[in-house]
Amino acid sequence: LGTVGPVTVVSLPDQDWVDAVGEVPGIDAVPWDLRSEPARPDQIELVVPSYLGPPELLARLAGLPSLRAVQLLTAGYETAQPYLPQGVQLANAAGVHDASTAELAVTLMLASLRGIPDFVRGQERSHWGSRALGPSLADRRVLLVGYGGIGQAVARRLQGFEVAICAVASSPRDGDHLVQRVHGIDELGDLLPDHDVVVLAVPLTDATKGMVDGPFLAAMKHGALLVNVSRGKVVDTDALVRAAAEGRVAAALDVTDPEPLPPGHPLWTTPGVLVSPHVGGATSAFRPRALALLRDQLRAFGAGEPLRNIVT
Amino acid sequence: LGTVGPVTVVSLPDQDWVDAVGEVPGIDAVPWDLRSEPARPDQIELVVPSYLGPPELLARLAGLPSLRAVQLLTAGYETAQPYLPQGVQLANAAGVHDASTAELAVTLMLASLRGIPDFVRGQERSHWGSRALGPSLADRRVLLVGYGGIGQAVARRLQGFEVAICAVASSPRDGDHLVQRVHGIDELGDLLPDHDVVVLAVPLTDATKGMVDGPFLAAMKHGALLVNVSRGKVVDTDALVRAAAEGRVAAALDVTDPEPLPPGHPLWTTPGVLVSPHVGGATSAFRPRALALLRDQLRAFGAGEPLRNIVT
Repeated sequence: LGTVGPVTVVSLPDQDWVDAVGEVPGIDAVPWDLRSEPARPDQIELVVPSYLGPPELLARLAGLPSLRAVQLLTAGYETAQPYLPQGVQLANAAGVHDASTAELAVTLMLASLRGIPDFVRGQERSHWGSRALGPSLADRRVLLVGYGGIGQAVARRLQGFEVAICAVASSPRDGDHLVQRVHGIDELGDLLPDHDVVVLAVPLTDATKGMVDGPFLAAMKHGALLVNVSRGKVVDTDALVRAAAEGRVAAALDVTDPEPLPPGHPLWTTPGVLVSPHVGGATSAFRPRALALLRDQLRAFGAGEPLRNIVT
Repeated sequence: LGTVGPVTVVSLPDQDWVDAVGEVPGIDAVPWDLRSEPARPDQIELVVPSYLGPPELLARLAGLPSLRAVQLLTAGYETAQPYLPQGVQLANAAGVHDASTAELAVTLMLASLRGIPDFVRGQERSHWGSRALGPSLADRRVLLVGYGGIGQAVARRLQGFEVAICAVASSPRDGDHLVQRVHGIDELGDLLPDHDVVVLAVPLTDATKGMVDGPFLAAMKHGALLVNVSRGKVVDTDALVRAAAEGRVAAALDVTDPEPLPPGHPLWTTPGVLVSPHVGGATSAFRPRALALLRDQLRAFGAGEPLRNIVT
């Protein structure tokens, strides 16, 4: 046997993940679900918790004396932060969910504009609907509120649809191959009345919480569509229910406030509102992109290089 | 008044269309719905019948002694042909419906894969569904059967979705900027087992009638999705109902055989089947594209140049 370098021990959610990630130089991966006793608890330096596990399990991190980093499989990290031991780095899965979430934004937009909910309800009662001219996505003006990974992934998907795309971010900047310019959020009031579809792809922060309120909705074009794939609390739900009930806006929401939406909540039954149960990232697109991120991150970690996506 | 050249009289479906088309050199457009008496019946040389009018109205064409051409606003022309007087040219609206129809193909594909019908049914009973990992369109292999205007418009729309696209047409040819190669229809048997989504975008001809039969469906990958935006008779409906009922394929259909689908028809209730009521072309995308075609065609007709889209 030749010289063997130092090996870094990391934990992955289960043996399936260990097998799927495969060999990474300098890394010894062990399965750990954060419920049972881990193998080699004294040596684990990085933990990858499972994708949809409850955040309370992260309380177990406190028992790992060698822990230096936690790599999440979610983009959100606010529920993990309180469990993070002092001095331990936290990395999120930024980018991993962009394809799936942006795809759902376009799905909700198309389904809503082209009348799929009506056709599904028609199908339930064997009813072949009429052929009145409905809206197309073609020729619409789409406003992307938020132009990070998900906003850009939405823009890429809209390229072939004969639409005009406009992007807004927290501060103005030059455009890219997808949009001419990225407008600053202070221009939002001027932009809203000109757009047929408004897509929310912002993180939930103090600045975005409740951003879509009564005045925001009143500034939207009459009959325009609001698509939310960010976080429910970006929207003032009561204001949205009022605007939708009056037919001033339509909405297609993958996230709501509260969430899950309880039985009897008015969003379930307001005309022109389509709700999907927070499934933006939860698709077959997740695993291959998560594996690619883990391989990159573990290789860097084993080589003593900095991790990407450090959030705290 | 200066010299006035010869003027060609044409009819458009109503005064709205006359106003919307606007001035065209060499053309005098009159409104005619094919129901009332037209103005100047002896002089009308070209007729544009209304978009969704019954084909029987075309019997009126026989009373126009100067008629030289009919410009349809539909892509299909099989119902108009029997009413065409001897020696009169027929032009269809090829291209006008591509954007809207291709958009619906992508809408049906995304809605079906991402579970929108389940979410709509869940919404009907205030049910927030589970977060199990469903399929994404990302990473899927999409087979376009038919690569004319609509097939190409589907390919353009799929560019940003992280999919592999493969096109099949009646004869093989070089690819374009969207697909590497256009395969010949004789390669279909080899291609079907490799694809997750199969889109039908072929015209209805003797060759395509009943093309999607039991063996075609059996050759598809288990659980693959069939999307039909062409004509219902391209698919053997009984064979599709059997394959879908056994869970071998899913289907999203804008066209069916018979059409409209009568109450009680098994397609309404077969699991994994989504039906829209032949709304591929019937959207707001129609009118601006139809107007652009009419302006081009009338200008050419007035100038004595050949019309595009001549079908007989």
